[in-house]
Amino acid sequence: MAVADEASSPSLAARMNGVAPSAIRKLLAVSTRPGMISFAGGLPASDLIDAEVLAETFASVLRDEPGQALQYGATTGPLDLRAAIAERRGAAVDPDRLIITTGAQQALDLVARITIDPGDVVFVERPTYATALQTLRLAQAEVRSVPSSDDGMDPAALAEMIGEARAQGRSPKLLYLIPNFSNPAGWLVSVGRRRALLEIAGREGLAIVEDDPYGDLFFDNPPPPSLFALSEAEPAIEATVIYLGSLSKVVSPGIRVGWAVVPSGWVGPMTIAKQGADLQSSTINQLVAARYLASGRLEERLPVLRAAYSSRAAALGTALRENVPHNVGSFVQPQGGMFVWMSLKPELDADLAVQAAIDRGVVFVPGAAFFADTPEKNTLRLTFATATSDQIKEGALRLGAALRSAS
Amino acid sequence: MAVADEASSPSLAARMNGVAPSAIRKLLAVSTRPGMISFAGGLPASDLIDAEVLAETFASVLRDEPGQALQYGATTGPLDLRAAIAERRGAAVDPDRLIITTGAQQALDLVARITIDPGDVVFVERPTYATALQTLRLAQAEVRSVPSSDDGMDPAALAEMIGEARAQGRSPKLLYLIPNFSNPAGWLVSVGRRRALLEIAGREGLAIVEDDPYGDLFFDNPPPPSLFALSEAEPAIEATVIYLGSLSKVVSPGIRVGWAVVPSGWVGPMTIAKQGADLQSSTINQLVAARYLASGRLEERLPVLRAAYSSRAAALGTALRENVPHNVGSFVQPQGGMFVWMSLKPELDADLAVQAAIDRGVVFVPGAAFFADTPEKNTLRLTFATATSDQIKEGALRLGAALRSAS
Repeated sequence: MAVADEASSPSLAARMNGVAPSAIRKLLAVSTRPGMISFAGGLPASDLIDAEVLAETFASVLRDEPGQALQYGATTGPLDLRAAIAERRGAAVDPDRLIITTGAQQALDLVARITIDPGDVVFVERPTYATALQTLRLAQAEVRSVPSSDDGMDPAALAEMIGEARAQGRSPKLLYLIPNFSNPAGWLVSVGRRRALLEIAGREGLAIVEDDPYGDLFFDNPPPPSLFALSEAEPAIEATVIYLGSLSKVVSPGIRVGWAVVPSGWVGPMTIAKQGADLQSSTINQLVAARYLASGRLEERLPVLRAAYSSRAAALGTALRENVPHNVGSFVQPQGGMFVWMSLKPELDADLAVQAAIDRGVVFVPGAAFFADTPEKNTLRLTFATATSDQIKEGALRLGAALRSAS
Repeated sequence: MAVADEASSPSLAARMNGVAPSAIRKLLAVSTRPGMISFAGGLPASDLIDAEVLAETFASVLRDEPGQALQYGATTGPLDLRAAIAERRGAAVDPDRLIITTGAQQALDLVARITIDPGDVVFVERPTYATALQTLRLAQAEVRSVPSSDDGMDPAALAEMIGEARAQGRSPKLLYLIPNFSNPAGWLVSVGRRRALLEIAGREGLAIVEDDPYGDLFFDNPPPPSLFALSEAEPAIEATVIYLGSLSKVVSPGIRVGWAVVPSGWVGPMTIAKQGADLQSSTINQLVAARYLASGRLEERLPVLRAAYSSRAAALGTALRENVPHNVGSFVQPQGGMFVWMSLKPELDADLAVQAAIDRGVVFVPGAAFFADTPEKNTLRLTFATATSDQIKEGALRLGAALRSAS
């Protein structure tokens, strides 16, 4: 009996160190209640998904190459797709350095699995993407939060924390960054700070994982060069940058097409890890993505997406400024992406405030889930991606009332 | 420089203990040479994939619920799909115990990740599925091969080896079995042996992972009850059986729909692992699978698949008996699935024989890749799934000549 019990209590539970992703999941369930206005999701807008053209693309792939689309394919993805993505990156990346994954989430997972030994240290921004914490801890990394500002991770603090980790006999292994319109922070990291982080990583021998699902969703100006592009342009820095990309926010999350660009020497281990993980991602979805990209349709759609998200972000910013006094909640207007990060006055707890908000028919995600260390309880994440302008106005009104009542 | 070098040599390489999946990959590349007859693949027959109906199903899903199909969905898969699969299993399985994965390969990977601590022992059949070895080693399991016969794993040997592992201070954790028409061995394990293995696993507290991609592809008679069904029917045995299934061999591998049925207490950790691994499998492919299963089409198609594979297996058996003398190569005629496992006379090395075969225009997979321990070099795997009857006759002729020349 004791033995059977042992077998039915998997060892993962012990590894998760109190990660509670279900808190976010529960809020997302609340989001679908009738009349509820949701700023809680992390989904791209369903009304902006190019459904008709994608349906035509599925039909044409299944008409022209059904045998190939429904059969097994290459572990790292079809060359057509890898080449189309490598070209879009704006740098002459050899498509053989590109591995297609089931969303960028899997790209991070595979990188973590081939690099992390139990107890290795990974440095992340503060706050950072909640499910990245889950992935890194699943790989048994020790995740450490580096102080960060509106310009991303603080390089001096990073350098100091690397030194501390080494002094503790620990092995600093990766630096996980979301420099473009971060989920949840919304920030855009400047080129100067990108270069500073790159230099530290190069000097200290940490590989950088640059997660970039939102870079195409800029509002006015494109983001600065990626850390990956900087490192390719300046080999003297000797930094290893793994670039993660995804079609989830610009084409469709439901097709699950992401990728990692890795150094040539990592392709072998990544391929072995991908095979062991799931043999390959969906063949048909990859052929559809390849054909969609080859058609040039994404380049036509991007201005539409940018305009829509930009307008929604502006509407939310205006509505928040009208309804939430600056001494109750402050935020930096994002220049792209899908998120606004708000800091409430220190005595406000977003976990309590969200209950007051739900009572008034609006929901957001309290910030705690996005911290690898002691959370700042007075923070929250709002998305403007999926709400109409009427919902944004009414939602901000309800939010303002909820925050005042919780004060 | 040393530090950068260190960062660019991921730790996976050291973990893989000489697994060389590329050997099989190279042979599959040879398979596509003009004029080559291939018994090497592990693919289902492209001509048996229900492409037209699947194309209609994709079109209808994208017409009726495009917003849902192209958007994020539930981590463990849509309830419709889980319910349809749970029903097909022929046992009243609660759909909430079923987790949809990217092929059964990912199901094994997630189970390994939530159960295996580095150095834990996993027992496998001899021979076993090559990529399962890769997955288990990726999870840092120590894989031990248990002597097996045409009726699968030897229970007495298993019991002894579990005792040995414990005496060495090791932790035996999982038993990985492919009881129905194994890849590569082709065997069908009897109900008596299933029960014997179940009892040992129950008594010793090992969880069984029952991998069943081929069970629907029986030729004359359905296989005996699954170990999962036996364990559900006899709770007194107190065995934990994780049942892995897949639509890859009966619907389409390209849609990547597999699943794990787990004990209720494992659903939480499996869900966390799935989220960390890739958030979820493709939404659209899962909705297509759900609709295809709900239509009853699979039950219509299965007799067609069984008849086709049965006829191809019979043709290969006949052609092999005509062309390969029993003292050169022997095999057991399979009763289902896609594979024939052949033992050559002891002095023949299949790695050398395959070169002679390729020179004559036929290719197979040497058996070495399917052994977790010292391989039996005089073994090989043939698939009858993808060849026409003319190719089967000519291929066996060439194979016979190659084996005689290599003798």
